[in-house]
Amino acid sequence: MSRLTGKVVIAQGGGPTAVINQSLVGAALEARKFPEVTRVWGARHGVRGIVAETFVDLSEATTHNLERVARTPSSALGSTRDKPDATYCQRILQVFRKHDVRYFFYIGGNDSSDTVRIVTEHADREGYELRAIHIPKTVDNDLPITDHCPGYPSAARFVASALGGVNADLLALPGVYIAVIMGRHAGWLTAAAALARRHDDDGPQLIYLPERPFSIERYLADIERVYQQQGRCVVAISEGIWASRDGKGQAIPVTVDLIRQAGREPEVDAHGNMQLSGGALADELAAVVQKNLGIKRVRADTFGYLQRSFPGVVSSVDAREAREVGEKAAHYACGRDLSGSVVIERTGDYAVRYALADVRDIAARTRSMPDAFINADGNDVTEAFRTYLRPLLGDAMPDLERLWAPAVELGGG
Amino acid sequence: MSRLTGKVVIAQGGGPTAVINQSLVGAALEARKFPEVTRVWGARHGVRGIVAETFVDLSEATTHNLERVARTPSSALGSTRDKPDATYCQRILQVFRKHDVRYFFYIGGNDSSDTVRIVTEHADREGYELRAIHIPKTVDNDLPITDHCPGYPSAARFVASALGGVNADLLALPGVYIAVIMGRHAGWLTAAAALARRHDDDGPQLIYLPERPFSIERYLADIERVYQQQGRCVVAISEGIWASRDGKGQAIPVTVDLIRQAGREPEVDAHGNMQLSGGALADELAAVVQKNLGIKRVRADTFGYLQRSFPGVVSSVDAREAREVGEKAAHYACGRDLSGSVVIERTGDYAVRYALADVRDIAARTRSMPDAFINADGNDVTEAFRTYLRPLLGDAMPDLERLWAPAVELGGG
Repeated sequence: MSRLTGKVVIAQGGGPTAVINQSLVGAALEARKFPEVTRVWGARHGVRGIVAETFVDLSEATTHNLERVARTPSSALGSTRDKPDATYCQRILQVFRKHDVRYFFYIGGNDSSDTVRIVTEHADREGYELRAIHIPKTVDNDLPITDHCPGYPSAARFVASALGGVNADLLALPGVYIAVIMGRHAGWLTAAAALARRHDDDGPQLIYLPERPFSIERYLADIERVYQQQGRCVVAISEGIWASRDGKGQAIPVTVDLIRQAGREPEVDAHGNMQLSGGALADELAAVVQKNLGIKRVRADTFGYLQRSFPGVVSSVDAREAREVGEKAAHYACGRDLSGSVVIERTGDYAVRYALADVRDIAARTRSMPDAFINADGNDVTEAFRTYLRPLLGDAMPDLERLWAPAVELGGG
Repeated sequence: MSRLTGKVVIAQGGGPTAVINQSLVGAALEARKFPEVTRVWGARHGVRGIVAETFVDLSEATTHNLERVARTPSSALGSTRDKPDATYCQRILQVFRKHDVRYFFYIGGNDSSDTVRIVTEHADREGYELRAIHIPKTVDNDLPITDHCPGYPSAARFVASALGGVNADLLALPGVYIAVIMGRHAGWLTAAAALARRHDDDGPQLIYLPERPFSIERYLADIERVYQQQGRCVVAISEGIWASRDGKGQAIPVTVDLIRQAGREPEVDAHGNMQLSGGALADELAAVVQKNLGIKRVRADTFGYLQRSFPGVVSSVDAREAREVGEKAAHYACGRDLSGSVVIERTGDYAVRYALADVRDIAARTRSMPDAFINADGNDVTEAFRTYLRPLLGDAMPDLERLWAPAVELGGG
């Protein structure tokens, strides 16, 4: 089988992760080794850089620079939120044809896999020989088929670390603490908070995910129970929790419910769209606890952008796998003439192998947390989830040790 | 000189830090070596545990457990926000007398140093022989005399790391990002954001501190200028910034000014006190940029509780110094019969020695950023500040490398 001679284009799409550059560097360095590859280009800011023809020549990047870039969070080529339609994809194909690009590696989540699907279909239809590979990444961990998505384990390590620190904070100064964690449609990242627990009474004692409707009454009752038992309570909540569905089946954000319960109305803009600011959910969730349970020290944080690209908080397993899915992309396309989406298969505890899935089975589908990972009460994860996530966090987590010193018995004093 | 025989009591006060347990363990392990010390007790939850006589016996903690506790963030003994008055301090002294406590080590910030001062004065007045040492800690870095406060360098490392990640994020997906950072009265921790910069065009491009009044007009003009030049802008703002002073000289929070400018009024509670939620400043700062500058992608995060006790993001210099100020407390009190507050003196670039200051010169005084550390425009720090902070961050910061690959020259295409 004669292999295709031509250029490689690599691009990065969607939100950054802490290890997305491992995939970039893995793909670039491996691709550079194939004699069929005439040049390895990187597109600036995802597909946008392809249609604008703004490329950098990765064949001329030093290996040393690339190795340091691999350890740097966020997308070194730049990213984009563009979701190409058929016309956009046709334009991509024109650019590929013009510059004799025969290999396309797109590192990204759902939208990026869909782009790879459309570009591949257009190329097939036009008879243009192209090998296109979707390289998975997303802190949301919501791609189907793959056991997990590169980027998720490091974000999970950040969340578990953060909650570990918060739990230690509340052991010192008791109260209620609420963490609002990324994940609009799937609770994977919020669920990672459970890995902060070592002792039976460590927080987070409560975890709420968008896979289950959220009841404010239930939330208050849960916190009250934990607080009465332990004198403190740490809550991890997904930003994507919803209170109920409107007549059209659209989820109504909990923030809206909370604001209305407080006797106010959410602000609306000129178009009638509700304006919910970034910190509103955390603030309202804290206020409702303070008001209804009469607990004085109630704090809430929205983790925001720190969780997805924090330098130095990286899972060693994630870094290695992100590198390897990039390398495998080059092997599948340049070495074996294949197209598709690279997936991770768990083959042991803990071991993985890589495989190539049909991009049509990945694109535009999201994977929520399965029922087996959520407890019956819908306010925590199960041991099955903890078993799933534990090996992904990589090297041992930082020490979170309690003082083991006996209480001084003063008798009658 | 005959030395005092009796017990040691160690306590931790105020907000946790990532290295406060280094000081606890340093003091405990060194104190255990002095033959005059009959027992080393830890008070649970600061001074509150002294008056309640809830002690643990640190003489019976294993060295191995203590060494792991030292690496654990937050106050392992528990903390308190109690600010003892004269009566409270007299009660502390009664407990000390009852249990033959002759050495008191209080690890904390301003309030804790003031407690040490009052307890010492009462003991002197009553002729009760007591050696009392204040061991400094605070992420706010606002204690006088000492070059810096243990706890600050690790929090500064967290802030600089976070901003480094945010800057990488904005290089990939441009826009405006606003980080609201701890520090009600002093800008030290917010200023640490400057250490995220490596290249001339790295963010944060703007830094606002409570040492200077904050002008919304100026803030908008600054962001507009940076955004026009670079297409992105990262802003670090202290939670303690204030807009102006009222008739009584009280600072008016910027949030209030922003809410009023938006044509609303801050909510007030039954007592007429304004209710400003945790995320309000960040949300309003983002909204005013979006509205006035017409920039679409504007994001804001409130770093909140993550910055002060994040496991695994610790300055190696901070860990060592926090340990040593604890050890020195035992040496000064048990070995040399002295009382006071341990301070760090910078003696080289970078080297330190420890000294003992009069606790009356520390107590209830706060140190703001000096003028030499703030630029003339009041929207950044100076190189002098960067030189001050750089060695405190400890081991090399994580890689934040840019890709150095030449742009592909396509000529006429």
